[in-house]
Amino acid sequence: MLTESNLQSLAEQVIARCRRLASFSEDTGGTRRTFLSPPMRDCHRDVSSWMKTLGMTVPIDAVGNLRGFYPATSPGAPRILIGSHLDTVPNAGAFDGILGVVLAVALVKSLEGMKLPFGIEAVGFSEEEGVRFGVPFIGSRALVGRVDEELLGRKDANGISVRKAIHDFGLNPNDISTAALGDDVLGYIEFHIEQGPVLESLGRPLGVVEAIVGQNRLELTFSGQANHAGTTPMNLRRDALAAAAEWIVTVENLAKQTPEAVATVGFVEAKPGATNVIAGEARATLDIRHASDRARTEALDELIRQAESIAGRRGLTVKWRTLLAQHAVAMDPFLTDQIQQAIQKTGCDPHRMASGAGHDAMILAEKVPAAMIFLRTPEGISHDPAESVHLDDVAKALECGRHLLTQLAGSQEFLGRTCRA
Amino acid sequence: MLTESNLQSLAEQVIARCRRLASFSEDTGGTRRTFLSPPMRDCHRDVSSWMKTLGMTVPIDAVGNLRGFYPATSPGAPRILIGSHLDTVPNAGAFDGILGVVLAVALVKSLEGMKLPFGIEAVGFSEEEGVRFGVPFIGSRALVGRVDEELLGRKDANGISVRKAIHDFGLNPNDISTAALGDDVLGYIEFHIEQGPVLESLGRPLGVVEAIVGQNRLELTFSGQANHAGTTPMNLRRDALAAAAEWIVTVENLAKQTPEAVATVGFVEAKPGATNVIAGEARATLDIRHASDRARTEALDELIRQAESIAGRRGLTVKWRTLLAQHAVAMDPFLTDQIQQAIQKTGCDPHRMASGAGHDAMILAEKVPAAMIFLRTPEGISHDPAESVHLDDVAKALECGRHLLTQLAGSQEFLGRTCRA
Repeated sequence: MLTESNLQSLAEQVIARCRRLASFSEDTGGTRRTFLSPPMRDCHRDVSSWMKTLGMTVPIDAVGNLRGFYPATSPGAPRILIGSHLDTVPNAGAFDGILGVVLAVALVKSLEGMKLPFGIEAVGFSEEEGVRFGVPFIGSRALVGRVDEELLGRKDANGISVRKAIHDFGLNPNDISTAALGDDVLGYIEFHIEQGPVLESLGRPLGVVEAIVGQNRLELTFSGQANHAGTTPMNLRRDALAAAAEWIVTVENLAKQTPEAVATVGFVEAKPGATNVIAGEARATLDIRHASDRARTEALDELIRQAESIAGRRGLTVKWRTLLAQHAVAMDPFLTDQIQQAIQKTGCDPHRMASGAGHDAMILAEKVPAAMIFLRTPEGISHDPAESVHLDDVAKALECGRHLLTQLAGSQEFLGRTCRA
Repeated sequence: MLTESNLQSLAEQVIARCRRLASFSEDTGGTRRTFLSPPMRDCHRDVSSWMKTLGMTVPIDAVGNLRGFYPATSPGAPRILIGSHLDTVPNAGAFDGILGVVLAVALVKSLEGMKLPFGIEAVGFSEEEGVRFGVPFIGSRALVGRVDEELLGRKDANGISVRKAIHDFGLNPNDISTAALGDDVLGYIEFHIEQGPVLESLGRPLGVVEAIVGQNRLELTFSGQANHAGTTPMNLRRDALAAAAEWIVTVENLAKQTPEAVATVGFVEAKPGATNVIAGEARATLDIRHASDRARTEALDELIRQAESIAGRRGLTVKWRTLLAQHAVAMDPFLTDQIQQAIQKTGCDPHRMASGAGHDAMILAEKVPAAMIFLRTPEGISHDPAESVHLDDVAKALECGRHLLTQLAGSQEFLGRTCRA
C-alpha cells in the first residue's frame, strides 16, 4: 500500500492537475469548457499524456470521451470503469467532474505498474453539464447506446448541431455506436465532489452514494386580476403574487416536514411586475427531489393540491406544466458496500447518502453496476471559481480507491459478475 | 335645472367626446397621449372649440395646460377651477382624467349662458400620469409654482428635456411662473373615475373623496446564499426567495388587519433565478397606502421589523430603500360636505372614501381648497382600453355638478373665502 507521504504527494499532484486543466477555457476570465469546444483539445492532450506515461492506451471515442485503458493481468479479462466528466459549466471551479478523471489516473499511477485481474478504463466524459446543447450526459449516453438522431440534430446557440460539433472536432458521428460498452464491464466507479454541505456539516471527508435522487421540475402559473395597488381594497383583490408567495412558503414547510426531501422555488415572476400594480399573474418554478420515488410523488401531489387550494380560496386559477420528471436511480448495493468498507479502512467514518444532483453514474447504472464516492466540498460551494477540496480529503479518496481496487481484485463474487450491457 | 332627458343627452355627448379624444394617440393600436406629444395638439383643438362655442376664452399656459375661462356675473369676481388631466398612460382607456375635463365643459354648457357670482376655469392639465418624464403632475405643479429648474432639465427616453419639449410645442418655458394661480381662486373641483371597485361593490354611482392617501414605496433586498437545489438539505439553506415569500404573506396579512390600509408587493425577483438553484438574493417592492399618515407609518415600521425578523431567523440580511414617501392630503371639508349634499340631491347615496391614487387635486390642495367626486368604475378597470363609465352615472355626475354650482353660488361662506395662493 501507499505510504502516508506518497498519498499526500499524489493528492497534491491531483489538485495541481485539476487546477492546470481549469486553465483550458473558452473564456479568458474564468473556466468554461463545454462539449468539444477548442480547449477540450488541450485538456485531452494533457490527460492523455499523463495516461500514456502509465502505459495506458488512450482512444477518444466518437462523442469525444477520453477512454484510457490500463490492461489486466491477462488479455481478455473484464474491465472496470473509473471516471467522471471533463466538461464544465461557465465560470466553473476546478474540481466538478475533473477531479474524478484525474483521481482515476492517479489510482492507476498508485498501482506502480501492478496489474489486476481486471483492466481499468479511466474515462473522461466529454459532456455532462448540458451547457452547450441544453441536454446533459451526452458523453455517458453514448456508452449506454442512447445518443439518437434527435440528440445528434440538436443545435447549440450558434446553430451548430451535435453531429456537426462532433465532425468539426475531427471525430466521426457515424461511429457513435462503437462507443457503447461491451459485455466485459464489471462496474463503474465515480469519484465526485459532493457539491453540497452535508459531509462538511458532519465533519466527514468521504461519503458513499446509495442512490441518485429522482426529481420533478415544474412551472406553475397563478392567474388572478391585475389591478391598481392604491384603489383596490384588500378584500376585493385577486393577487397572483400573494398566492404564489403563500405557496412558496408551503413548499418550504412541506419539504422540511418530509425526511430527506428537498424542494426549491428558485424562480418567480410577477406580471405586470410594477411596484404600484397588483400582480395579475405569477409564475414560479418547483424543483423537488427525493431518493424515494414514492415519497417524491406523494410530496409533489400534495404541493399541487395545495396550489389548487390556495388559488381556489383566493378566486384564482393555477396551471402547471412539467419541465422534467426523472425517477431515482439506485447505486449497486455490492459496490456501495465495498466502498463503505474501503472508506472505513482509511480510518474515516463513511456517510451513506443520496446524491441530490444527477451524475454520469446515473446513466451508466442503466447498463452496469455503478457506484459513487463523494468528497467533502468546503462550504458546499460548487459551479463557482471558489469551488475547492481539502488536500487530506483527496488523499483519503486515493487511499479509499486503492483499498477498493484491492477488495474487488480479491472478490470472486465481483469477478464472477456478468455485465448487463 | 336640467331635465332628465337633457341630462341623458348631455351625458351621451360627454361619453362620445371622451371616446373621440381617445382617438388622438401617439400609437396606432391604442391610446397613448403623453405630455405635449403631437396628438395633444389635436386634443387641444377639439376641447378648445367646444369651449369657445360656450363663450369661453381658451388660453394655453406655458406648461401646456388648457385653461378655458367662463366669466362671472361681474368682472373682477373670483373663480373656481373645475378640471382634470388630458394626458394618458400607454394603452389607456378613454376616461381617466379626460372625463373630468369634458364634464367641466358640459357643466358650463348646462348653464346655458347663465352667469354665476364666480367665474369658471375649466382646466385640462397637460401632464398627470408621469409617463414621459417619470415625474407626475407637471401640469398641476405649474399652477402651484412647483415647476423648478430640476424638473425643467429632466429628460425623456429620447433625451429631450421638459424645457425643450415645452419649447418644441410652441410655448415659452420662461413664462411658466405666469401659469401660477392668482389670489382669486375659491377652490378646485375634480371629477374622476374611481379606478377601483369600491363604488361598484357598494352599488353607488358617486363617491366624495375625503382624502388622498399617503403612500410609501420601498424596495427590499433579502440576501442569503445561492446554492444547489439538489445537494443542499433544507436545514442548511439560506434561501432568499423563501424569506421574501414569507414576508409577502406577512404584508398581505398586516394590510388585511389594518382598517382602510392597502399594501402590495407587485414586483419580486430571485437571483440567480434558475429552477435548480436556491435563490441567494430576492428583491421585492412594497407599496403601502393609508389616509392616515400615522396608521401608514406604523404599518410600514411593523413590516420592516417583520422583514428583519424573518431575515434574522433564517440567517439572512435584509436592506431596503425608499422609492417614494408621500403624506396624505385632506380634501377641503367645506367643499366635501357641499359635494355630499349635491350627491344626495341627485337621489344617490354618497360614499365618503379615500382616494388610493394620487390626483391633480392633491397638488392643487397645496394652495386652494380642493375636492373630488369619484364616478363608479365598472369592474374597477382603468389604465386599460376596457375602462368605461355607465351613462347613468355620468348623468348623475352632471346633475351633482349642477347642484354643487348652485349651492356654491348661493353660499356667502364660500364666496367670502380667501385663497391661500
